[in-house]
Amino acid sequence: MSTLNALFEARSVAIVGASDNPHKLGGRPIAYMKRLGYQGDIIPVNPRSKIVQGIPAIASLADLEKPVDLAVLATPEVIVESIVKTGIERGIKNFVIFASGYAEIDAEGLEKQQRLEALFEGTDARLLGPNCLGFINTQTQLIASFTTAMENHPLKVGHLSFAGHSGALGAYWLDKTIRADIGVSKWISSGNESNVDLADIVEYLANDPETHVISLYIEAIRDPERFEQALMLAKQKNKTVVALKGGKTAAGSRATQAHTASNTRNGVDYQAIFERTDVIEVDSLSEMIKQCQFSLSGLSLNGGRIGVISISGGAGVMLSDQLTASGLDVNDFSEPLHNLVKPLLSAHSTTQNPVDLTAAMVAQPTMLGDVATALIQSKEYDGLVVFMGLMDSIAENITQSLLDIERSADYPVFVIWMGGKIDCVQKLSNAGMLTFDEIPELVTLLGRSKSK
Amino acid sequence: MSTLNALFEARSVAIVGASDNPHKLGGRPIAYMKRLGYQGDIIPVNPRSKIVQGIPAIASLADLEKPVDLAVLATPEVIVESIVKTGIERGIKNFVIFASGYAEIDAEGLEKQQRLEALFEGTDARLLGPNCLGFINTQTQLIASFTTAMENHPLKVGHLSFAGHSGALGAYWLDKTIRADIGVSKWISSGNESNVDLADIVEYLANDPETHVISLYIEAIRDPERFEQALMLAKQKNKTVVALKGGKTAAGSRATQAHTASNTRNGVDYQAIFERTDVIEVDSLSEMIKQCQFSLSGLSLNGGRIGVISISGGAGVMLSDQLTASGLDVNDFSEPLHNLVKPLLSAHSTTQNPVDLTAAMVAQPTMLGDVATALIQSKEYDGLVVFMGLMDSIAENITQSLLDIERSADYPVFVIWMGGKIDCVQKLSNAGMLTFDEIPELVTLLGRSKSK
Repeated sequence: MSTLNALFEARSVAIVGASDNPHKLGGRPIAYMKRLGYQGDIIPVNPRSKIVQGIPAIASLADLEKPVDLAVLATPEVIVESIVKTGIERGIKNFVIFASGYAEIDAEGLEKQQRLEALFEGTDARLLGPNCLGFINTQTQLIASFTTAMENHPLKVGHLSFAGHSGALGAYWLDKTIRADIGVSKWISSGNESNVDLADIVEYLANDPETHVISLYIEAIRDPERFEQALMLAKQKNKTVVALKGGKTAAGSRATQAHTASNTRNGVDYQAIFERTDVIEVDSLSEMIKQCQFSLSGLSLNGGRIGVISISGGAGVMLSDQLTASGLDVNDFSEPLHNLVKPLLSAHSTTQNPVDLTAAMVAQPTMLGDVATALIQSKEYDGLVVFMGLMDSIAENITQSLLDIERSADYPVFVIWMGGKIDCVQKLSNAGMLTFDEIPELVTLLGRSKSK
Repeated sequence: MSTLNALFEARSVAIVGASDNPHKLGGRPIAYMKRLGYQGDIIPVNPRSKIVQGIPAIASLADLEKPVDLAVLATPEVIVESIVKTGIERGIKNFVIFASGYAEIDAEGLEKQQRLEALFEGTDARLLGPNCLGFINTQTQLIASFTTAMENHPLKVGHLSFAGHSGALGAYWLDKTIRADIGVSKWISSGNESNVDLADIVEYLANDPETHVISLYIEAIRDPERFEQALMLAKQKNKTVVALKGGKTAAGSRATQAHTASNTRNGVDYQAIFERTDVIEVDSLSEMIKQCQFSLSGLSLNGGRIGVISISGGAGVMLSDQLTASGLDVNDFSEPLHNLVKPLLSAHSTTQNPVDLTAAMVAQPTMLGDVATALIQSKEYDGLVVFMGLMDSIAENITQSLLDIERSADYPVFVIWMGGKIDCVQKLSNAGMLTFDEIPELVTLLGRSKSK
C-alpha cells in the first residue's frame, strides 16, 4: 500500500492555523468538512483559541494525544518549518502546506524550500506542497483545501479525479464540474512538489478504485520516466487520462518557472509520452471537461461514421466540412435507409446525410425522433450528431425526443443546441447527454475520440 | 444607384399571404413591423380578409392603387408564379420569396425555379430568394422576414450587417447579436439566389453608409469575379468583412447542393480571394460575433506585443503558450517597468509578463488597476489581456477596475473571466469590452487580428 493512501484517505486531520472565520484560509477547510460531514476527526490547532468553529482546539501539534493521519498547515510561511518539525517529532506522517514564498520566487525561496525538504529526508513522512491548494477526497468528505470553488455549491460524489500544478486552474475545474453536474472523486493540487509529485499522484489515482477518469494539468515533470510508468499503470487499469499541458513554449516555460518553480523545457517529449500511454491531450479546461464527460459515459466511437440530423441546412454543411476535415466520415445513406427516411421528411427536403429537417419539423414534432430511430436501427453509423438552434416554442418536445433517442441508441449521441433554452439544455446534460453550444467544440472531441 | 437600394430600403411593402396570426409566416413580418414602427406603408394581401392585424388588406396585388416598392411572398410555392406575374404586371420592382421547393430539391424543382427566373428576364425587377428568410433593415424597421429570432427581443440599431446563404444560421446570428447587445444595420438571407446574389448584396453593403462591418455565411458563389470585385469595393470603403465558408469538403459540398442548390466545389480558390480582399475567415458563428465586435470597436492591434495580467499562474502559462504559438509576443518587461511593477505585487510574486497577481489580489483590490496602469503607460505592449477566474466576492470591484483600465488604454484590452459572475461580465460587455470564457477563443481572435 502506497503511503499516499494514508495521505489522501486520512481519518484524522489537524488544521494548523485554524480560524473561526469560515472565509479564511485556516477556517475554510474546517467549515467545509463540518458542513459536508467529514467521516473522520478534525482537530483545530491554534495557540490563541480553545474552541474553533465549535470544535475543541489544541495550541500546538506537540499537544496531540496521538498522531493524526494528516496535518494541514494553513499558516504563514515564516512558521512552517518549526510546525513541520514539531509534527514529525510527534509522529505525523502526512502534511499539506498551503503557504507560498518558496522556490517559485527566487534563490532565497529555493533555499527555504530545500531546508523544508531536508526535514523530510530519512523519514517516511510525505508532504503535498508547498504553494498548493491542497486536496479533496469526496468519498470521506476530507476537504484539505481552502479553494473557494465549493462555497456556493457542494461537490457531487463520482468517479472523475483531478491533479495538477495550478491550484487556481484546479479551482476553475471544480467550478466547471459543479456547473456540469459531474461527480468527482479526488481533487489534488500539487504545487511546488517538494515531496509528492504528479507521478506519485497518478500512480495513486490509477490504483484508486473510485477514480475512473483522471484529468491532469501539467507544467513540468521532474522524473519523466516515473511519470510515464504511472501513466502506463493508469492505461493498464483501463483509466482514461485527459491532460492539459502548460509551458510548451519558451514564454510559457518562463511563466511556469515563476509559477511553480518548474522548468518545462528540459527536453522531455511529452507528446511521445502521451502517445505511448494513450493520454488524451486537450487545449483548454472546457475541452477537458467535455472529454472527461464523454470518457465517464463509458461510450465510445467504434468507428468514424457519423450520422448528422440538423434543423439547419447551413449547420449541416458546416458539420459535414468540419467532421470530414477532422477525419470522420459523414457517409451518405444506403438505398434502403434512404427509402426509409424519405417519407419521414417534408416533401421539400432532400433525403441524405446530413439530414436537413428544415422548419417543417416545427409542424411535425415526431420528425426528429422518427428520423433518428431510422438512422440508429440502420447500423450505418458509429455515432449521431443532432444540431438544433433556438426553437424555444417546441424546446420541451425536442428535449423529450433527444432523451428518447439517447436511450434507444447503442452508440454515442451528441447534441449541439445553439441558443437553446437553458433549462432544456440543462435537463439533457443532467441526464448524462453531451451538449454543446457550437460546432467546433464537438468536432474537436469527435476527432480526438476517433483517433483513440 | 443600384436597384438594391429600392429593395432593401423600400418605403412601402405588400405582404402576400398576410395572416392575422402573428406567429405564422405571413403574420410575423406584419407583427414585427407594427411593433417596431416601420417607417413606411404596410399593405396586407389576403383574398379572404378585409383587415389583417388591424390594417386594411387587399385581395390581390392587382388591386394595388399604385405599385409598392416591395412585395413579400409568404405563400406556399404552388401559387408563387402567378403572384409574381401579377406583381410584375402591376409594376412592382422588388420581390422577396420565402417558399422553398425549388432547385434545392430535385430536377423538377430546378425547372420550377427556372420558370420563376424567366418571369424576371428582360425586366428590371429584382428577386431575393426563393428559399430564403428575407431581410431586415433596422434603419427603417423594415422586417421582410419571418425569422423567430426577434420574438422575445428587439434588435438594437447599429452598424453590423449580415448576408448569407443560410436563413437558420442567419437567425442564430441574430440571436447571438441580441445576446451580445450588438447593433445591427442590415440582415439579409439570400437563399437560392435566383436573381440577387451575395456579390450584389456585398456591393450594396459596401456602399451602405450605415454598415461598417459585413459578416457573411457563404456556401457557393456563382460568379467569383463579381464577388471578388464586391469584396474589393468593401475593402476600399474601409469596411471589414468577416466570413464563414461552408461546403469546403466533398461531404460539405454534397450538403450545400441539398441546402441551397449550390455547388461549392467548382474550383474557386476562396482562400486566395479572401487574402486578396482582406476578408477575415472564421470557423464558427461564435468566433464571427467576437471578431465583428472587435472590428466594430474601431480598435486594432498595431503590433503583436501582448501584456498579460492573470489571477492564476497556470492561466498565465497557458496564455503564454497559446499566444506565442499564434505568433504573438508575450515579451517580458524592460527593467524600468519591472521596477515599477515589483512594489505593486505581493512579496511572494515574481515580477514578469505574464503578471501573476496571485490570491494576494483579494486583500488588495487596487492591485489589478495599478498593475494595468503601469503596463499601459509603459508603451511596451500593443494590447492587454486580463485573466480572471471566479472571484464572486470581489466581482463588482474587479468589474469597475476593468472598466477603468479600458477607458485609460489607447489600445485593445481583452478580458477572459472563467466562471465569472454573469451580471458583471454582462456589464463589461455592455460597455463594449470584449469578454471571453476561455483562452483559445481569445487567442484565435488575436492571432487573426495580428496578421491583418
